[in-house]
Amino acid sequence: MDLQEHRQQFPGLNNKFYFNYGGQGPMPKASLEAIIDSYKHLEVHGPFSYKSNNWVSQCLMTTKQTIAQEIGIHPHHLTLTENVTAGCNVALWGMDWQPGDHLLLTDCEHPGVIAIALELQRRCGITFSTCPVGNTLNGGDPVAVIREHLRPETKMVIVSHLLWNTGQILPIKEIAAACHDRDTLLLVDAAQSVGSLPLDLLASGVDYYAFTGHKWWCGPGGVGGLFISPQVKTNPTFIGWRGVDETVKDDAFEIIWKQDGAKYEIATSAYPLYYGLKAAIDTHNEWGDAHQRYEQIKLNSAYLWGELTKIPGLSCLKDSAPEAGLISFTVDSLQSHTSLAKALERSGLMVRTLALPNCLRACV
Amino acid sequence: MDLQEHRQQFPGLNNKFYFNYGGQGPMPKASLEAIIDSYKHLEVHGPFSYKSNNWVSQCLMTTKQTIAQEIGIHPHHLTLTENVTAGCNVALWGMDWQPGDHLLLTDCEHPGVIAIALELQRRCGITFSTCPVGNTLNGGDPVAVIREHLRPETKMVIVSHLLWNTGQILPIKEIAAACHDRDTLLLVDAAQSVGSLPLDLLASGVDYYAFTGHKWWCGPGGVGGLFISPQVKTNPTFIGWRGVDETVKDDAFEIIWKQDGAKYEIATSAYPLYYGLKAAIDTHNEWGDAHQRYEQIKLNSAYLWGELTKIPGLSCLKDSAPEAGLISFTVDSLQSHTSLAKALERSGLMVRTLALPNCLRACV
Repeated sequence: MDLQEHRQQFPGLNNKFYFNYGGQGPMPKASLEAIIDSYKHLEVHGPFSYKSNNWVSQCLMTTKQTIAQEIGIHPHHLTLTENVTAGCNVALWGMDWQPGDHLLLTDCEHPGVIAIALELQRRCGITFSTCPVGNTLNGGDPVAVIREHLRPETKMVIVSHLLWNTGQILPIKEIAAACHDRDTLLLVDAAQSVGSLPLDLLASGVDYYAFTGHKWWCGPGGVGGLFISPQVKTNPTFIGWRGVDETVKDDAFEIIWKQDGAKYEIATSAYPLYYGLKAAIDTHNEWGDAHQRYEQIKLNSAYLWGELTKIPGLSCLKDSAPEAGLISFTVDSLQSHTSLAKALERSGLMVRTLALPNCLRACV
Repeated sequence: MDLQEHRQQFPGLNNKFYFNYGGQGPMPKASLEAIIDSYKHLEVHGPFSYKSNNWVSQCLMTTKQTIAQEIGIHPHHLTLTENVTAGCNVALWGMDWQPGDHLLLTDCEHPGVIAIALELQRRCGITFSTCPVGNTLNGGDPVAVIREHLRPETKMVIVSHLLWNTGQILPIKEIAAACHDRDTLLLVDAAQSVGSLPLDLLASGVDYYAFTGHKWWCGPGGVGGLFISPQVKTNPTFIGWRGVDETVKDDAFEIIWKQDGAKYEIATSAYPLYYGLKAAIDTHNEWGDAHQRYEQIKLNSAYLWGELTKIPGLSCLKDSAPEAGLISFTVDSLQSHTSLAKALERSGLMVRTLALPNCLRACV
């Protein structure tokens, strides 16, 4: 299938120049169709009948298998979540924090994740700090930076796999090894990497990998996941019936925790969207596998980067072609980039602004 | 609009006798249409453009206003969640628990909520116990039972408003007053009451009221909410960008917590489903307001209860007409009710089984 034909499957690409996967990718037609079919199926056979509950079980299993295969894990180690941030919360609140423990973040993490760290600090008496990997974009060793900032009391490190602000890929396998050398766990914020980079998570050695289905996989908003390594112990925090089995004993419920990733799932979700995500992943795979897609993304971003560097007064943050699909740049004469982004949107071209660093970002 | 005409709007009612709101009510056509329209709108104008982000803000505001008006609260005190259990988690993990604190539940609470209590006990060193309100179904005073089981160290009480197993309504206003007399907070699990009972929550005095939109409101699965009284202090636990504003200061993000119910929201949700829920609520209101709907529910349940009591070998748990739309009953000759529920489903009539007490339940 050629790219033009492939693009026809994404209605959001038909009426604009779309370079903005900021919060959400364009959703393929097949996803909306799968969602509609699922809702109709549930009404015909249920809802909440034996037949529709079997459908839900099958939906959960199929979705987990599809995702697990894409990212190189066993489906038992996958927790379905509402979004990447929910997955980060499961990992961060699931730690057995003690006062004085230390949490290390890079200086490129998302405000949502920083906010979790703040509340952990207040509530559990831990400390947290950041390390400057952002300035290794054009040279320098992010692994060395992280290693230098590990302390004896560092219990967890949070890094983004593909930095949302600069587009740099961090070597998570090497970072995981550096962390494990020091008995520290690694939580990876995979907001921008799932669906854009080929992944073999089990081989990477990461302990937690939190992602969303609605950015580069282009699934419906509200479905994400968390890989938890079978090596690490994680306490459940937000808890519900999906994470437990119950039996009746002495006229009371006895709670039995599930032993797979469902332990960290809560209660009723929008199951039709799970098939929407599966349909999106299938759509991508019809064009090419994760490696082929990544190669195409790099071709596109190298082209765009090359063209952008020719424009006087415009500076790309990266001084060579991007490693993935995020291209951040500044326009010298602007104080704020918002007015430009808004003007571009009015003319049908969509990029997003970032606050730190103050720049514009295009995604291909 | 007469009832027959009203029923035409629910495709799930067309091909079966549906007495099962166990996990989810039948969704009206208008909900699916609103969901589809929303997805299409997002693709035309975005996703994640200024225009579609404004649409999301409007969607959040409109949904909160619609819900707030139905349950008698200010929209600022409403947190949107994925389901009722998520709301219970926000309240329970948001308490400043100290070792030795006590949590009191009724003996009719859901296993998902009991599981949260178990983990709080393990992690925070609290204790929890249950009080026997279940046997006040046909006489006795549930408020007195709760009052007798309050301890000096009881910091929170959890009750369901409409007991999911027996269909009894608990007098939450009186229970809230009894709790507040003893400096204890009240969390209400409203899984079965929102959408079936007329509500005036601000007047009820409850501290937390967690609910879902997909049972008696018949909205899409995966949208619920939590009312938090402005009187109580709640720490955020699962945290994300929706709960904070951020500014850049000294080259780092400064986190500013939101001051309304959004403080406890996390990150990207399935916003099109919010309009699906609004459309479901609007559909109900086109037939009648919350009081009129409740009167109709009681007429229906009294009729069904009356007919069931005429069947030899069948016993309703309640010895008079139900107070709301849940009717639990046993069939004397059966060891387990599952085989009967499955046989009924095959013949197009849907009820659910319950484990505690071992019975069948019909919802009208």
